[in-house]
Parts: sequence; C-alpha cells; structure tokens
Amino acid sequence: MRIAVINPNTTASMTASIGAAARAAASPGTEILAVNPQSGPASIEGYWDEAYSVPGLLVEIARAERAGVDAHIIACFDDTGLEAARCAAAAPVIGIGEAAFHLGSLLGHRFSVVTTLSRSIPAIETNLLKYGLDRRCARVRASEVPVLELENPASDAAAKISAEIERAKLEDHAEAIVLGCAGMADLAARLSAKHGLPVVDGVAAAVKLAEALAALGLRTSKIGGYAPPLPKAFAGGAPEGAPGR
Amino acid sequence: MRIAVINPNTTASMTASIGAAARAAASPGTEILAVNPQSGPASIEGYWDEAYSVPGLLVEIARAERAGVDAHIIACFDDTGLEAARCAAAAPVIGIGEAAFHLGSLLGHRFSVVTTLSRSIPAIETNLLKYGLDRRCARVRASEVPVLELENPASDAAAKISAEIERAKLEDHAEAIVLGCAGMADLAARLSAKHGLPVVDGVAAAVKLAEALAALGLRTSKIGGYAPPLPKAFAGGAPEGAPGR
Amino acid sequence: MRIAVINPNTTASMTASIGAAARAAASPGTEILAVNPQSGPASIEGYWDEAYSVPGLLVEIARAERAGVDAHIIACFDDTGLEAARCAAAAPVIGIGEAAFHLGSLLGHRFSVVTTLSRSIPAIETNLLKYGLDRRCARVRASEVPVLELENPASDAAAKISAEIERAKLEDHAEAIVLGCAGMADLAARLSAKHGLPVVDGVAAAVKLAEALAALGLRTSKIGGYAPPLPKAFAGGAPEGAPGR
Amino acid sequence: MRIAVINPNTTASMTASIGAAARAAASPGTEILAVNPQSGPASIEGYWDEAYSVPGLLVEIARAERAGVDAHIIACFDDTGLEAARCAAAAPVIGIGEAAFHLGSLLGHRFSVVTTLSRSIPAIETNLLKYGLDRRCARVRASEVPVLELENPASDAAAKISAEIERAKLEDHAEAIVLGCAGMADLAARLSAKHGLPVVDGVAAAVKLAEALAALGLRTSKIGGYAPPLPKAFAGGAPEGAPGR
Amino acid sequence: MRIAVINPNTTASMTASIGAAARAAASPGTEILAVNPQSGPASIEGYWDEAYSVPGLLVEIARAERAGVDAHIIACFDDTGLEAARCAAAAPVIGIGEAAFHLGSLLGHRFSVVTTLSRSIPAIETNLLKYGLDRRCARVRASEVPVLELENPASDAAAKISAEIERAKLEDHAEAIVLGCAGMADLAARLSAKHGLPVVDGVAAAVKLAEALAALGLRTSKIGGYAPPLPKAFAGGAPEGAPGR
Amino acid sequence: MRIAVINPNTTASMTASIGAAARAAASPGTEILAVNPQSGPASIEGYWDEAYSVPGLLVEIARAERAGVDAHIIACFDDTGLEAARCAAAAPVIGIGEAAFHLGSLLGHRFSVVTTLSRSIPAIETNLLKYGLDRRCARVRASEVPVLELENPASDAAAKISAEIERAKLEDHAEAIVLGCAGMADLAARLSAKHGLPVVDGVAAAVKLAEALAALGLRTSKIGGYAPPLPKAFAGGAPEGAPGR
Repeated sequence: MRIAVINPNTTASMTASIGAAARAAASPGTEILAVNPQSGPASIEGYWDEAYSVPGLLVEIARAERAGVDAHIIACFDDTGLEAARCAAAAPVIGIGEAAFHLGSLLGHRFSVVTTLSRSIPAIETNLLKYGLDRRCARVRASEVPVLELENPASDAAAKISAEIERAKLEDHAEAIVLGCAGMADLAARLSAKHGLPVVDGVAAAVKLAEALAALGLRTSKIGGYAPPLPKAFAGGAPEGAPGR
Repeated sequence: MRIAVINPNTTASMTASIGAAARAAASPGTEILAVNPQSGPASIEGYWDEAYSVPGLLVEIARAERAGVDAHIIACFDDTGLEAARCAAAAPVIGIGEAAFHLGSLLGHRFSVVTTLSRSIPAIETNLLKYGLDRRCARVRASEVPVLELENPASDAAAKISAEIERAKLEDHAEAIVLGCAGMADLAARLSAKHGLPVVDGVAAAVKLAEALAALGLRTSKIGGYAPPLPKAFAGGAPEGAPGR
Repeated sequence: MRIAVINPNTTASMTASIGAAARAAASPGTEILAVNPQSGPASIEGYWDEAYSVPGLLVEIARAERAGVDAHIIACFDDTGLEAARCAAAAPVIGIGEAAFHLGSLLGHRFSVVTTLSRSIPAIETNLLKYGLDRRCARVRASEVPVLELENPASDAAAKISAEIERAKLEDHAEAIVLGCAGMADLAARLSAKHGLPVVDGVAAAVKLAEALAALGLRTSKIGGYAPPLPKAFAGGAPEGAPGR
Repeated sequence: MRIAVINPNTTASMTASIGAAARAAASPGTEILAVNPQSGPASIEGYWDEAYSVPGLLVEIARAERAGVDAHIIACFDDTGLEAARCAAAAPVIGIGEAAFHLGSLLGHRFSVVTTLSRSIPAIETNLLKYGLDRRCARVRASEVPVLELENPASDAAAKISAEIERAKLEDHAEAIVLGCAGMADLAARLSAKHGLPVVDGVAAAVKLAEALAALGLRTSKIGGYAPPLPKAFAGGAPEGAPGR
Repeated sequence: MRIAVINPNTTASMTASIGAAARAAASPGTEILAVNPQSGPASIEGYWDEAYSVPGLLVEIARAERAGVDAHIIACFDDTGLEAARCAAAAPVIGIGEAAFHLGSLLGHRFSVVTTLSRSIPAIETNLLKYGLDRRCARVRASEVPVLELENPASDAAAKISAEIERAKLEDHAEAIVLGCAGMADLAARLSAKHGLPVVDGVAAAVKLAEALAALGLRTSKIGGYAPPLPKAFAGGAPEGAPGR
Repeated sequence: MRIAVINPNTTASMTASIGAAARAAASPGTEILAVNPQSGPASIEGYWDEAYSVPGLLVEIARAERAGVDAHIIACFDDTGLEAARCAAAAPVIGIGEAAFHLGSLLGHRFSVVTTLSRSIPAIETNLLKYGLDRRCARVRASEVPVLELENPASDAAAKISAEIERAKLEDHAEAIVLGCAGMADLAARLSAKHGLPVVDGVAAAVKLAEALAALGLRTSKIGGYAPPLPKAFAGGAPEGAPGR
C-alpha cells in the first residue's frame, strides 16, 4: 500500500520530519510518500496562509493520484484544503486534525487540543463543529509556540506544551490530549508517559485511518459534495489536475 | 463610500450583472467597484472550484484595500475565501451567503435556501452551521440549474427556482426564501411577489450590510482568528498582498 | 425613509438619548421618530418589567404604522415584544439586541455581551438561543450598573463596563463586544478605541439593519408565526391597533 | 393544597372546562381555583394575542399570591407570560405546555405535538428550544382547528386531531403525543385508547407538577432571572402586584 | 397507589434510608415498596458497577410488576438500567436522576448538579444529553464523597457538598441545585435553607413524578424503543421476567 | 497483534460469521479471537436484551485481558456495554457501531444507517448523540429484518436492506451508508457496488480502528469516567474480573 503524505507548507525539513513520523506509524508493507508543494508559505498559521497553500497542495494530490496511491494524508492540523482534495481524488483523503479528533474520541469522554498559536484556535474549533466532534472536545488551547519553532531543539516548545496539558487535566477535566500541529508528532509518547493520559498525534492517527480505509476499499463518496470537479473554462489556464487536462 | 464587490469567478458578464445588482441596492453616495480575478474558474460549483478561485480573490482584496475601499463583498454564495479575506483586509468583508442568511432570519422564523446544483448543498449547510444560523434554515434546496445557465434568457431557470420555492412553502413551512447564487439577484422581487413571502438576494443584502458596517466604523476584529497574516517565506514568491510585499 | 425608534420604557430622557444615537447612525434622508409608551415602567430590568411595557409598545407600533413609517426599532436590549410587534406591523421590525448580535457575528468568531444587571442575563441568553447565535457568543456579562444609572454622569458606569470588556478579552477570548443596553449607545466608539476591538451598540446596529430591510423592500413574512392578529372579542375593549379597530 | 389555574384568555366557558379538567386530575385535598383575566382577548392564537393577555394574567397571579395559593398554573399551551409570572410569584408557576413536554419525555424517546393553528407552531417550537426539549420532540403539527372551535360539539375537531396523531405515528415515528391546547383536555384518554400510545394533556400534567413542587416545598429560584421585580416608577400608575403597591 | 422504589445497589441500610425518603415525599395513600437486588455491588460508582447491578434490578422490576405496582422508581442517580426497565414494565418507570433534572429545570434557568465522585460526572453528563436537558445544566460537580460515606454521620460529607453548592452559585451562576446521589436525600431541605436557592433531591422528585404518571394513567409507550422484549432463546436459562417465563 | 472480537449474543454461528468477517478485515499478523458469552440472549434486539448480555460480555473482556490481547471489539451494533468494558480493560475497546460511524463520517457529508428492527432505532440514535456524530447521520432506517434472519440464506434480507439504501439515497441525500448489524458484514461490498456509494460494515471498521489504537499504543484514559472499578462488596459473590478477584 502506498500513502501520499502531503505537508501543505513548503518547509522541506518539516516534510522530512512528518515523513519520518508517518513511517514510524505505518504498518509493514505501507510505503509513505512525503511531499510538499513547490510554492506557497513556509508555515500555515491562519486562514490566509491556508488559502495560499491549497493550490499547491491540490497539485500534489493530482500527482499522487496519477501515481496510483491508495490514500492521501493532508499533514496540517487545520486540515487545509480537505474538502477540495476529496473532490479531486479517487483515493480516500484524511486530514491529520480530523484523524486525531476521531481517535481521541475513542479514548475518553472529552479531549483537549493543544495547538501552536491562539490565532489558530477559531479554525480548529470550526473544524470540530463541522466534523460533529465539538461536544467531545473540552477546550482548544494554544501553547503560543510558532510552527517552525517546534523544529528548534533549543526552544522551550516541549515545556510550554507540557504546561498546557497539565492545565487541560486540571481545568478542562480532559481525559485525553490531541496535539494540534504536525510538527509535534515526536512528542506524543513522551507527554503521554509524563501526564498519565493518552496523547494523540495527528500524523500517526491519519496514517492508521488512511491504511484502514484503503485496506477496506472505502473511498470518498462521489454522489454529493465531493463529486469530481466539473469541466469548465479557466482564465489563466487550467491547473494541473483539472478535469480534461 | 466605496465598496469592492468581488465576483470570485472569472466570467466578466456575471461580474457586470452582479455589479448592476449591487448598484441597484446601494445607497446614494455609495460607489460600487465590481471586479473579478484575472485567473481562475469561470464558475464556482463545488469545493475544488472554490480552492482555485481564492488566490485570485485575495489579490483583488489586496488591490481594493490599497485603493482604500470602505468594505469588501465576496459575491459567491459559498462565501468563498471569506475567512482569508478577513485576515487580509482592514476594511470589513461580507459574504453574500452570510448576508442573505442574516437578513432572512430577521423576516421569519425559518427560511429555506434555493441554490443551483445539489453538489453545493453540503458547503452551504456547513456555512450555516459555522455562522450559527442552521437552526433558522428549514432546508437547502437545489434547483439543478448550473450557475452560468442563469445568464441564459432562453433557459427555464426562473421556472425551476420558482417551483422549488413553492415546495419550500408547502414542505418546509419556510416563511422566507434565500436565493442561493449571485446570478439570481434579478429574480428576487418577482419571486417575492409571485409567492407572497420575502425573497432575499445575497448581493443586495451584502451591499446593505457592508454599508452598515462601514458607516458605523465597525471593522473586523484583529485579535483572534482574523489577525493579519504573519510575515514569512513563500516558496515561488510571495503573492500580491503578502505582508511586507 | 422614516424609522420609528420605540423606547419601550417610559423615561423620556432615555428616549431622547436613544433618538440622538439613532440619528447619529442614520443615513442622510432617514428620519428618526423616537417615542416611548405613555404608560409602563421607567426602565426594563427583567421579565416582569418587560411584560408591562409591551402593550404600550404595541400601541406605539400601531401609531407608527398608521403614520406610514418604513421600519420600526424596539430600543430595549431584551428585544421586548419583538414577536408581537412583527405580527402587528406591515413594516419590518428590528430589536436592538438581535441587531447587535447579527453585526457582532460579522466581525469576529465570538463576541461577548456586557449588559447591566445579572438578572437580565437569562433573558439575553434565551434570545441568543432563539436567534441561533448562542454559539457565536462567548459569554453574557453583567456590569451591575442599573439601567437609569447609565444616564448619571457622576456614576462610574463607564469604568465598570470597561472592566468587564477587559475580562471578556482575557477570560472569554472574545474578539468583539456587544453592549447590552440601549443606554450604553454613546460609549461604543470610546470603548472600541480603548480596548482595540470592535464594540457594537445595538441602537446604531438596528438603525442600519432597519434601513437595509426598508431599502430592499424586505418585510416580515406573514405566512407563519408573524401572521397578522385574528379579529376576535376583547374583554375590556380591544386595544388600539387591534384588527378591525 | 390550593392551586390557581389561570386561563389567560377571557372566555369564561373555556375557563370552566379547564377548571373541570384540572379538578379531574387533582389529588384529593387539592383545591383548584380556576380564573381568567377581566380584560384581554377571547382566545390566544399567536404572539400578539399573547402580549395583550399577559398584564391581565399577572394581575390574577398577584391576586392568587395574596390569597396564599401553593402553586400557579398558566393554562395556555404557549405558556403565555410564564417568565414574568415566575418573577411575580413566590409560589411555583407551571405552564401547561412545559408540563406536557416534561411528562411526554418520560414516556417515549420522542413525542409529537398536535396543536390548533399553524401560526402557533413557531411559538411552540421556540418554547421547546428554550426548555431544552426540542430534541425530544419529533414534530409540532397543526390540526387547523381554531381554539374556540374546540368547544363546539358540532365541529369535527376531534377527527382532525385524531388524523394528525395517525400521521405523527406513521411519519414522525412519535412514541407519544402531546395535545397542544388547553381546550383539548377532555380528548386525551379517548385518543390514547384509539391510537395505542400515551397522549398527554397539559392541564392535567401541570396540575400534577404543581402538586409535586408544592408538596416538596420547591419554589422558583429568586437569585437569577426570576428575581422579584425591582421597585420603580410606572407611568400611568403601577399595576396591581407591583412592588410596594 | 403502590410504587416500587428499587435501590439498584445491595446495601440494605441505604435501601432503608431511600425508602424513608420516598415515604416522606409520598402522598397520603401512596404505599412505597423499597427493595434492592439480592446480588450485585454494594454501591454504584461508575459504568462497571452499573452493568452488574442491572440484571438484579430487572428481576426486582419483574417482581414488582407481578405484584401490580402502579409505578417503578430506580433509585440511583445514574438512572441505572432505566431503558431496559421501561421495556420490561407495563407500569411507568422513573429514574431519580431524570426526575431531579426535570423538576430542577422548572425552578430556574440553570441548575448545577453536585454528585459524589468525579468518575460519575461523564455518565451524568451523558444522561443530561440524552434527556435533552444538558443546556439547562450549568455544571456537574463532584464533592469527592464516596457513596457509602454519605451514611457515615462522622464524615464531613455534608460540609463538602455545601461547599460545592457555594461554588456553583458563584462560579456557575446556578439558580438551583440538584443533589446527585440517592444517599443525599435527607440533605436537601437544610442545604436549600442555608444557600437560599431550591435544592432538588431525586428520590422525592421521582416519587412525585411516579405518582403523577400513575394518577394520570400515563404509561410508557410500547410502540418504539421501549417495546416489550421479544421471546428468544437464552443460553444459561432465561432470567426471571423474560417473556414466556 | 491479538484482538478479541466479542459477539455479545450467544449464537455461536453468528460468532463464527463475525469472526470470519473480522479475519477478512484484519492485517497480516493480526490474530482474531472471536468469542461469545456462555450465558445470555441469542440475539440483541432492544435495551432489555442488551442488559442481560453485558455481564457475560464483561466476563469475556476479563478473560481476554488476562490472555493479554491488544484490543477488544464489541460486535453488536448497539455497542452493548461499551462504557463498562472500557472501565474493565487496560487494552482499548471499540464498538462496531461507533467504528462504523467514525469511518462513515470520513467518506461523505452525511451517512444513513440501515439496521434491523425499528425498535433498535432509538438506541442507535442515542449512541450517535453520545458520540457527537448525530449531525453527520442523515437518518437511521430499519429494514425490519430480525437479527437471526440475516443468517438465513432463504430470507429476502439483502433485498430489503438494498431497498432501504435506495431510499436513503433519494430521500435522505445520504452520501454513504452504514450497515447497522454485525450480521450484515458480508453484504457491504456487494451493496456498495450496486448503489455506487461507500457502504461501511462495523465489524471491519472496528478491526481497523482496534489495530490502529493498538499499533499506536493508545489505550483508554483511566483518569475519568473509564477509571477501573473500585474494590467493593458484591452480594451473591463478585463476578469474574472484579477488582481483587
């Protein structure tokens, strides 16, 4: 089985880390193709960054489709471009945010999310509402660690995230924690042991859900909102992956 | 007062119609600047089309900001790119979908929406959920009229839409109707008279809400999810409107 | 265009202030008729006061209808008697509470309300639930300033309200503020500047929404809950505005 | 124990019927005082009628309080003036609508309501939402029988109501029925036998809940929204029951 | 009238206390049969204990049915086995948790629950959600008093519960309190007087609701989820109360 | 990896079919232990049957725990005893109902459920509400095929289920289907091909989610509602699996 893991930002070192995390979670026999768009922002911190990462993401989805992958993963916790990617792909598509929310809800009555910057909280809360899992989330918390700082070993990112987990236990009565950024993948096991509750990383969660759907032959429904794009004129030229191109 | 009305698709004739509808709704002294992106799909029918229209839309927002407009309107019923546009603009931004939902909820207990294609229903339902007005909407209905067919006087678009309004009265007990496409703007008054209930067009509704916010000096909050984009590296070059560019 | 602004309490000085606030918000060409009932409580602080202000309010609605106004505004933040007024009027009717909630939800993900007394919180929360905008409101806060104390320049009302706004930013993560009393209209601009976020006054918001509906010819639906009153016997004599009277 | 049953409309024959229904439901030792206001509409069919019945209703509440009743019942299915009455009374107050909803939710997963006119549906749906029991209600249905026609033995009111119950079983999968008007009290047992499911009459339900609260010494909380009215000036004279009068 | 009050745990002294509380709440002429299962856990503190108490509870329901009781009460605040008991009984069945929630919602806008251990909070929150009354509950609080410690006069149980009520007033703005354990029945009146707000005990509440349904001839609907068990093979022998046995 | 698949009813032939379905879905290297309780009902069709299957189910959970399995699956679509099993087990526990709902929500905006008998609909709807996925479910439909009839090749079970799927597409606008009984596992692929939309079987879905959690080392949180049972006296003897036994 081959799974495309698409980091929608353009920071190659982060793509490599995400790829490693995905491979660590993958079953034997699953090949992980970790890629990122050729153009777009170096990190995704808010709606505006999201908007500019989606076209490049969709190009990567189209290429992975042509390469015949069995599933796609969008490796940004905002699930950037998820709906559009589902329209574009025949293979199933999983966002790391939704993956973590779904697994987190199997482990306790309520989970809290610990993400990077406050400005990302509304988008995450809106996603929880869309997925229906808002009632299962006690609170979305920000550690105020910028995305790319997570890659800096000299930063105190892990300590700040750990402090938020402690608050989530005490103040939110959270029974499980969801880590709210692809760049936090390597912290899950350590934080789980430290705090004595399950800590879910979205990259690993998405790999397992993608493997699950692919193994069961379950593909995105094409009879409603995720129907394939209709052929139509494109000013400035149709993008790679457009119908008929 | 100057208001930018941005049709996020690239069909200039539709931009002209939308501009005319906006001018018909505008107060004396309000100047309407109706534009559309230079690149992107000719119509927006689903999530994939949306994704490719947003970058061009944001360029238009950036240009209108530089031109000093008092408010922006996104003239696609899906409220394409609304959150990203709010990050990008200092002036307030209104989507025609949300505008119609808000005014519709002031006119009766429940409204029904009549849109173009079935494939657009999930995105509209998701927007209603995000805005909180899902409980005020009895049902989102599709007339199965493609967007660009609305411009064809030989089509039976008006008859199909009228038939759905009749069903909304009988089956949904809707007290008001929201027309679910920027291309339906000229039908509202006629359908209201025919069916004996208020019919809200999003373009006109958005013009009045944009005038309202601008007149009252109310601008998008910048302390949460709509904070301005952070300066950062952009592979392939930062887009027009990026911070520092 | 003529808009009736009805202060449902009987304190004429407050009616004058509300009228001034409404005129400040009105477009050129809009005439504001600020009135209050001849009988009823001097201020509305709870459900019981509301009940006794409604009959007088409806008389004013009936008079304004006969005078041919284009829209009515109910200038109490509880939206006192809104549904009954919609039954009684052909012209659209807007409550200042709902007006502020709708505009507030266009400016940020969540707003908090700062009102007068704690006893008013349940009625405001119930209105948010009815309108569907409860999910958009982070919290309803009381400043514990009585309504009529707002008119006393020697009171520390503004300081108390400002302190609640600060708490709403810190504790509720509110991105916008809605002022929860018609008597706070003159504070909005100053508090917005001080706290760096949009502050919505309901009187101004209602004027703009009333102008919007009237300009677009949108009137309350008469085919459901807001159908006109049925003619019927009235013990003690039918009130002014009753059908057939 | 003495319970005031207040029919908020002014039709004395209906008050008598409601009193009889209340006595049939009352425990031995419970005295029912059935009254109606001296002024106001002959029936309550919509928000406007409601508004004009509340002042008279509150006068009756004040009188019954002075007479030392143990509980009050508001015998209109809209629960007309319930919140204001709770502020005015020390004894607990029960609306027949809420009473029927609460008992109905103890008998099956979902109940449907069969009321009089369509125009009353929005108010009933709004009450269900306020009480929190909207998820327990499958549908609110109108029989299109006017309130006072229920008293006409020559009408086909019972047959129309029975037909709606049959539809509620088939179409709504309702497991129980709530009759949506005080004037339907005498139909409950017969319709229950005919349709083979529990049918709840609000008058009887309210009598039992009022007896329950009174027997247990449970009275309305006075520390929030139902706090007693504040003393204040009243233009035109304070009503009977005003604080200090 | 005869009402079976079934304590689903096997602590006879607690059954006796619950019986006494039920008799104190019962109307003249109501006979209370207080029983507990012959096998099962000594207290119910979490889902696992619940599961092992239900079969014994259902045996007691079957016996009480054969004895011809008019209603059943399940005297554990988790409403242990309520749905299964409703399938098994012709007479109505009331849980003390749901009874307290329903009465509590008639007394104020929001109530808070004070229960025993934190581990019981999720089950109570889930019940509130099922019943539809979650919006009426401000918060479920744990006093961290184990169930059987409530019977120990030397414990500081009452003080701990009182402290939580104080917090509920200050922090939750609760207008009423629901005591979250059958073993707290004797504390309600004292705590109500001390804190100046209504305090609802579930045992008393359930007695009154059971009397209400029985007096009105309202029985559980048998046409949906509470239909009687179907006859079928039982490995290990059918339990007492099985159809055909 | 070893996964216990526990059919909570006592029909061995159904356990064998479920085991086969689980093995077909399992990854290489996953061993499936399919068992059923020694005592209890032959099928689970309603709350009463559920209650009598749980103690036997918990014994099987305890045995599988001692055998050191990596995860447990409860193979009844009602997710019978799921919460109690989570308290009892250190390894994660998945219900086939919740598994199917979670995967179904990754494949389309809304899924419909097709189950066996109407009497099971309320329990399934309640589970959807508890899990938070009620908004993602368009409708729960009954085929009126009894559970054990699914094993009868001469029955028209498949045709009845297929007819309901067709109705779900047309009437519910469902984009995906969830099969609502463990006994339908072998129908999923065929029905998906026939109707052109994804069809999710809960047994297969649960196997993949159980593998996912086990592979990632994610175990049920033990700090809230799923804390291990407390040691306590058990009248009639503590069951197998009780703490300290």
